[in-house]
Amino acid sequence: MNILIIGGGGVVGNRLGAKLAQRGTMRGKGIDKITLADVNDPPQIDAGKVAVDYASCNITDPDSIAACLTEDTDVVYLLAAVVSAHAEEEFEAGYDINLFGVWNVFERCRKLGTNPVVVFTSSIAVYGGEVDDPITGQTFLNPQTSYGAQKAAGELLLNDFSRKGYIDGRGVRLPTISVRPGKPNRAASSFMSSIIREPLNGVEAVCPVGDDFLHYYLSLRQCVENLVKIAEVERADMGKNHVMQMPGRTWSIRQMIDAMTAVAGPEPAKLIKFEDDPAIQSIVTGWRFDIHADKALALGLEADDSFEDNVRYYLEDDKPAA
Amino acid sequence: MNILIIGGGGVVGNRLGAKLAQRGTMRGKGIDKITLADVNDPPQIDAGKVAVDYASCNITDPDSIAACLTEDTDVVYLLAAVVSAHAEEEFEAGYDINLFGVWNVFERCRKLGTNPVVVFTSSIAVYGGEVDDPITGQTFLNPQTSYGAQKAAGELLLNDFSRKGYIDGRGVRLPTISVRPGKPNRAASSFMSSIIREPLNGVEAVCPVGDDFLHYYLSLRQCVENLVKIAEVERADMGKNHVMQMPGRTWSIRQMIDAMTAVAGPEPAKLIKFEDDPAIQSIVTGWRFDIHADKALALGLEADDSFEDNVRYYLEDDKPAA
Repeated sequence: MNILIIGGGGVVGNRLGAKLAQRGTMRGKGIDKITLADVNDPPQIDAGKVAVDYASCNITDPDSIAACLTEDTDVVYLLAAVVSAHAEEEFEAGYDINLFGVWNVFERCRKLGTNPVVVFTSSIAVYGGEVDDPITGQTFLNPQTSYGAQKAAGELLLNDFSRKGYIDGRGVRLPTISVRPGKPNRAASSFMSSIIREPLNGVEAVCPVGDDFLHYYLSLRQCVENLVKIAEVERADMGKNHVMQMPGRTWSIRQMIDAMTAVAGPEPAKLIKFEDDPAIQSIVTGWRFDIHADKALALGLEADDSFEDNVRYYLEDDKPAA
Repeated sequence: MNILIIGGGGVVGNRLGAKLAQRGTMRGKGIDKITLADVNDPPQIDAGKVAVDYASCNITDPDSIAACLTEDTDVVYLLAAVVSAHAEEEFEAGYDINLFGVWNVFERCRKLGTNPVVVFTSSIAVYGGEVDDPITGQTFLNPQTSYGAQKAAGELLLNDFSRKGYIDGRGVRLPTISVRPGKPNRAASSFMSSIIREPLNGVEAVCPVGDDFLHYYLSLRQCVENLVKIAEVERADMGKNHVMQMPGRTWSIRQMIDAMTAVAGPEPAKLIKFEDDPAIQSIVTGWRFDIHADKALALGLEADDSFEDNVRYYLEDDKPAA
């Protein structure tokens, strides 16, 4: 069992690699090798008893994909993406990676003829515009960002390649990960972690929206559990639409801060400054939060129990040593 | 006012060109030039008082697009496509034209910076799979053919390019055109016209489905009227989703044959032979027919009144001289 994680240098992909190495099995078989592929050098993970390779991979280049996605590859995680605010600023870069790059990866699988399991991460950014709440598995995808449009198009490719038997595709629309470890990035959602992460690390953070802002979240730990789970679902249980919402929960900024205070005491919350940012607001207020993930829940994927768990997981798994 | 019709050699595009030449105006302005562009030589149309150009255009080639889509182009109709059964057989050709070709046309507009009106024809093939009837503007697009997936992805591009202000896009999902003039083509829906057209011309035709088969239809004459209308809708009336179902009506094969008999007498129906074709059935039985086109109807687009009209229009507009 050989697993390739494209985007293995990212926060989710790297943690997924570590989880799989620790687990040692996938789809009932022992894992022989995990390849962490990325345009950036992936951080090293604890390999345990599994062989771990680190590969350079740029999905805009078919040859680069071919070098790491081979006939021995059983499972591909395609997590590489240009994130939302970046794709909004750089139109061509967004399409090059998030649509044509995805096409290149699926095409590599088709040409190999090996029908690998392919797990593709989409996003709640596919929802928006004039569609009714709640968001369900039958909701029209009406993205209001280029990132969302690219992810929705990638979903269509995943389903078509799967229907044709070129890949055994599974798509999951990720909730926003919070508390996401590491540094802020160019996602418009970056603040949704930094307002918790930075204060827990004793650093000030700016919240660009009001404390009644509602959004749909998942912890990194549960996200990784779900990414393992979706690869193990039987193909027959996927139905005709191989893409589904990954379960999350809806919290207000106030609920998140209160959860942080319940877990870590009153000091961190004092480090949050509220400063409206219209550019960020114009993106994130278009996102939907009344979201139901019935199909994924039925298949065994899970959300967090409370945001206090999200805070605890960050402290246990990710908080840098002082 | 310069109008470019890409796919101007096809049945719909060529008739649209003729209609616009006869009309002489578009969006309140006189039409100076209509360019019929196609990979095949477009049939000549009656130009009336309008200049009509005939251009060779292959949308897989950006230079070919640039030669006919210029800074003087005010309205683009993008009708060129690889049809359903063809796209199902030739996976790469389908994507090259129906997705990457569409991208090339929109990209040309973006690089020109002229924000032209772009009318894009999608299809009811975007509907399918495990979504509930009726099909509305809020229905999840779950195509079960490569053609449908390509069209749905094109819709996403149209909306994103429109949102960014690169094009003034309008997408319409065409019902199946019947009675479509001319010869059978590689669309799985080809029989839906030939079982009426051939008998009206005194020729035998084969129906590959049972006479209770239901589908969603529009006449060519009304389709062309609607394509003119959608280009003239105010941008402000389009909403955030610039793609909508073009109105049609649902008929059974039996209703269509009865309408033909009512208009043309009993002889033509005797020329229809029923022979099940599992390959065609596997495609067309996945298509949806309980379809509502509320948005387009509110914007002034229309369906036919009865299938007898469709038969009459064919006889008046299209039936070859004996």
